[in-house]
Amino acid sequence: MHVTLPDGKQLDLPQGATALDAAQAIGPRLAGDALAATANGDLVDLMSPLPDGARITLITKKNPADAAPVFRHSLGHVMSQAVGEFYRARGHSAEAVKRGVGPSIENGWYQDFDLPEPLREEDLPEIERLMREIIARGLPFSRREVSKAEALAQFPHDPYKQELIRDLPDDEAITLYQQGDYVDLCRGPHFPNTGKLPGSFKLMSTSGAYWRGNEKNPILQRVYGVAFATQKELDEYLHALEEAKRRDHRKLGKELELFTIDPLVGRGLPLWLPNGTVLREELAAFLKQQQFQRGYQGVITPNIGNLDLYKTSGHYQNYSDSNFSPITVDDEEYMLKPMNCPHHMRIYASKPRSYRDLPVRLAEFGTVYRYEQSGELNGLTRVRGFTQDDAHIFCRPDQLKSEFLNVLDLTVLVLKTFGMNDVRFRVGTRDPGSEKYVGEDSYWEMAEGQIIAAVEEVGLPYSIEPGDAAFYGPKLDFVVKDVLGREWQLGTIQVDPNLPERFDLSYVGEDGQDHRPIVIHRAPFGSLERFVGILIEHYAGDFPLWLAPRQVMIIPIADRHNDYAEALRAELHAAGLRAEVDDSSNRMQAKVRTAELSKIPVMLIVGDKEAEAREVSVRERTPEGHKERKGVAFDDLKAELLERYRTRA
Amino acid sequence: MHVTLPDGKQLDLPQGATALDAAQAIGPRLAGDALAATANGDLVDLMSPLPDGARITLITKKNPADAAPVFRHSLGHVMSQAVGEFYRARGHSAEAVKRGVGPSIENGWYQDFDLPEPLREEDLPEIERLMREIIARGLPFSRREVSKAEALAQFPHDPYKQELIRDLPDDEAITLYQQGDYVDLCRGPHFPNTGKLPGSFKLMSTSGAYWRGNEKNPILQRVYGVAFATQKELDEYLHALEEAKRRDHRKLGKELELFTIDPLVGRGLPLWLPNGTVLREELAAFLKQQQFQRGYQGVITPNIGNLDLYKTSGHYQNYSDSNFSPITVDDEEYMLKPMNCPHHMRIYASKPRSYRDLPVRLAEFGTVYRYEQSGELNGLTRVRGFTQDDAHIFCRPDQLKSEFLNVLDLTVLVLKTFGMNDVRFRVGTRDPGSEKYVGEDSYWEMAEGQIIAAVEEVGLPYSIEPGDAAFYGPKLDFVVKDVLGREWQLGTIQVDPNLPERFDLSYVGEDGQDHRPIVIHRAPFGSLERFVGILIEHYAGDFPLWLAPRQVMIIPIADRHNDYAEALRAELHAAGLRAEVDDSSNRMQAKVRTAELSKIPVMLIVGDKEAEAREVSVRERTPEGHKERKGVAFDDLKAELLERYRTRA
Repeated sequence: MHVTLPDGKQLDLPQGATALDAAQAIGPRLAGDALAATANGDLVDLMSPLPDGARITLITKKNPADAAPVFRHSLGHVMSQAVGEFYRARGHSAEAVKRGVGPSIENGWYQDFDLPEPLREEDLPEIERLMREIIARGLPFSRREVSKAEALAQFPHDPYKQELIRDLPDDEAITLYQQGDYVDLCRGPHFPNTGKLPGSFKLMSTSGAYWRGNEKNPILQRVYGVAFATQKELDEYLHALEEAKRRDHRKLGKELELFTIDPLVGRGLPLWLPNGTVLREELAAFLKQQQFQRGYQGVITPNIGNLDLYKTSGHYQNYSDSNFSPITVDDEEYMLKPMNCPHHMRIYASKPRSYRDLPVRLAEFGTVYRYEQSGELNGLTRVRGFTQDDAHIFCRPDQLKSEFLNVLDLTVLVLKTFGMNDVRFRVGTRDPGSEKYVGEDSYWEMAEGQIIAAVEEVGLPYSIEPGDAAFYGPKLDFVVKDVLGREWQLGTIQVDPNLPERFDLSYVGEDGQDHRPIVIHRAPFGSLERFVGILIEHYAGDFPLWLAPRQVMIIPIADRHNDYAEALRAELHAAGLRAEVDDSSNRMQAKVRTAELSKIPVMLIVGDKEAEAREVSVRERTPEGHKERKGVAFDDLKAELLERYRTRA
Repeated sequence: MHVTLPDGKQLDLPQGATALDAAQAIGPRLAGDALAATANGDLVDLMSPLPDGARITLITKKNPADAAPVFRHSLGHVMSQAVGEFYRARGHSAEAVKRGVGPSIENGWYQDFDLPEPLREEDLPEIERLMREIIARGLPFSRREVSKAEALAQFPHDPYKQELIRDLPDDEAITLYQQGDYVDLCRGPHFPNTGKLPGSFKLMSTSGAYWRGNEKNPILQRVYGVAFATQKELDEYLHALEEAKRRDHRKLGKELELFTIDPLVGRGLPLWLPNGTVLREELAAFLKQQQFQRGYQGVITPNIGNLDLYKTSGHYQNYSDSNFSPITVDDEEYMLKPMNCPHHMRIYASKPRSYRDLPVRLAEFGTVYRYEQSGELNGLTRVRGFTQDDAHIFCRPDQLKSEFLNVLDLTVLVLKTFGMNDVRFRVGTRDPGSEKYVGEDSYWEMAEGQIIAAVEEVGLPYSIEPGDAAFYGPKLDFVVKDVLGREWQLGTIQVDPNLPERFDLSYVGEDGQDHRPIVIHRAPFGSLERFVGILIEHYAGDFPLWLAPRQVMIIPIADRHNDYAEALRAELHAAGLRAEVDDSSNRMQAKVRTAELSKIPVMLIVGDKEAEAREVSVRERTPEGHKERKGVAFDDLKAELLERYRTRA
């Protein structure tokens, strides 16, 4: 047999040769360094026979990250062995520890156990210690192909293994992997020996999991671990995890009193508390101002509509899974609106339009309702009722590119206002091979061409994703990266000739004839709920002044400064700033700490000197830490804050 | 028998004496002047026997308005006679005209007819002419009591009269009234003769009306007339009617493109067009600003809620007629929210509250849905979905008066901002005799006492309406008079200890114990829909600058001034003003007329001179007519407009 190396060289090997044999054929040094291999693109271990004619690459310690799924899986076996030793050391027999499945997953692995007594979270460091011992022993992983009967005989006391093996096809080769005295049923691949596994791993948590995911089966204990090729990567991962936990919008939403979800009101239906309402209304006011400047017109439509409206639009037929059940009114049926589009189509149709009137840009912060399974609901990011920053632009085909540019420009401006500077576009085009698309080729070529031309003009990175278009037209998604490097899909733009057709919309062209407008759907935030959820995590609750629900906390040093503090508060409040006084009986330092915990961006500390000179001491939270200024004239500070508020700086 | 006169004097009269007899007993002059009378407060005519012992007053031509229902009814008989003569003159027999009922109504009367051929609107002046002839004849009205059989014999060819008479009780005295050859079945009362009837009447319109209001019966033709004691009153009434028609918010709503109602979307569910949306959002922004200054906090809650929420609040049980049908979600039932209160109660309950935190003032522009019969729906003033400018103030009992004052002050300010200066309060208190009220006497005394004390402090007129309280607490309505003298009930305030009880709300008092807060419900506008409807009629669409959906129209005199006009527009728009350019090919005068019809408050006319000097000619609509200024520096004008916009002047 032969295999092909990356440089194109062919290597002749005896039948049944493994990747280790190939490495050795190249040189003993490589054989010593090799950790795993790929054959025809699939990860394989050094111990498995290679297929004849395979293209192979060898993975060494120079690029161990390439072998991450392999070492994560091997670490799973090591953990499983360690758990066995842990219980033997506590007087249990080897047979007392039974095992379910144990795959590698993103960033790590898990293994299910049926244990003689539950493993506690505080036992995990001891398991980790035992794992490090096993790694230090440098035990080779050996691989063996066995018959079904041999496999069954290997695990006589483990009912889970018995069940798994019995369910395997009779004619399939069953493989067992072994390191030291630990044997597991496994397809592999694995590292050559435990000594080559990275020490940069961590056991994270345990949870309950039904055997085979079926709630009628017994619950097993699942233990999770993560591993990376280097300690640095592990540290970064653990830090990002900590950060994500600290920034969790559900946690911060509660702590900062932004929103609450109350089962008596309804699942997936957030109640916006006063602080969250401020945040949301600031966002809406910001976007409305931008939209006014760009020639949008506001409209307001009801939260329900006649079923006939949604039959006309097709939402009733096409999205029945996410529609709420109908409401009967006299002899009519109504439905909670899942989208604002049909209402806007009818507003367009409410009077005759001329080519001179176009584009018509109708914008609405429209609250819509869509059914989501209760298991899918999550804080603000997955809800059953949400408010879209929706707009529909009705334009002539020759206006498509300029309108698209207008939307791109607005959306990028919006995202950058929130410091989301890492933006890229994903342009969903038609898959020319598919039958699912409606409309003429000429329309698709025109629409895709104009979108790509607009995207080119903006000059930000983009990718074209054939097959990602809606069935009626191309679309564009914004993908932003947050400070943790997580990608979020925000704001979608869609080109739609379909709804104008279904609602028989028209305008009178320069030629005096009726023409069909094209509609652009767009929502820079997507929904206020989801965007606020993302913003909370993006800022970790440390909102910039203009967004902060509580902007200024005035802290009198002693009771005798309360009147001065209250006078300043009243002045700031009358000017439109959200200012409070902490006139509690706490000491100044405690008041500062309370304001810190509430993430109030500006604290004004006032004592005798300040009150005499109409001054304040300013303590500000900034992304870089605190900034303190003493003896600032109050009127200057007020003007400064108002200017920052007005300019959203 | 005897009767008592207003001055207390007794008059002895023969049995069966009439008011005319009483007048004659006083003096022949009075007998000649008398038009009608009252007996024990009821209007009677001069021809009917007076009850023994009655307190009577005589109505003369000095105060004929007191007899308005009488002369209106008599004019109805005169019209009925005139219609008979009208058809006889056209060759029909007297029997060909058959008559349904013909009562006096507010401002006039109507009479139903079954006619040999329909009366056309253009026939009404001829009927009026015939009526004036009959009046000129001075025919006395005579009254006669007859038996049922005699009554039936009087109208042998009129099936409607036959049916009415047959339905009368057998033992009741039936009266007939006659003037000239015209006889009608009638209870009266009437004027003594047609010559005394005022000429200040007008026939208004005809319409179809089912006999006895039953749609299975034949349709009769109903003719409406109005009449007043003097021509001046009639003229004023007709003018007010014209004005009301001109100001009709449904008509103006369409002409000014404020809103539309689309059956495909749903009945009673207005779609707010761009111009109406501006108006509505200006109102909301104004109130939000006021509320911010007064310590309100915004919240936002969903448009639906779990049925259990409304069972807890009692809305489900108590308002089933106006609730929409439930929506099933998994194993739960939801409902469109008819009120925001339950959601706000749950927000209050979402965290512990101390006496120091109160009052908590939660405000929401909350969109609610209530079923109304389709026949009741009317433009914006009677709808099925509407947005309340709602707030709930949670306070301690000792804060009730000051919070009430705060609300009164805010509401009066709001109304006066719209020039609604004629405001009075209606305080609904408990009817001490009724059983329907819940809560202890001490609570009612406290709550009513504090409200009345607050109202006294405001110093505006008020009335106390015992029995108008809700079952759980006193309330206060604002009644405003518009420019046409029509009264509108706006903004209600209610004191409510009931919902806090049902939702088990509490705060920790200074004593460390749990106490129950009181809730004040309030909505200065009532609903944005209804308030905008009223405002449209109040302003006849001529909104002040800050509310006007289209504020400034720039009118270039010739095409060569278009660029200058567009530059000014862009500047005004960037500053936040709603400015447009009329760059159509119309002549200047036509552009001015178009802007007038669109009720745009400010027109800027620009030609060579203006463009050269960066000036404008200003033409403004004011309540007093037009105001023109030439050669105004544009920058001054812009500053002036912005200041007026900002201050809502």
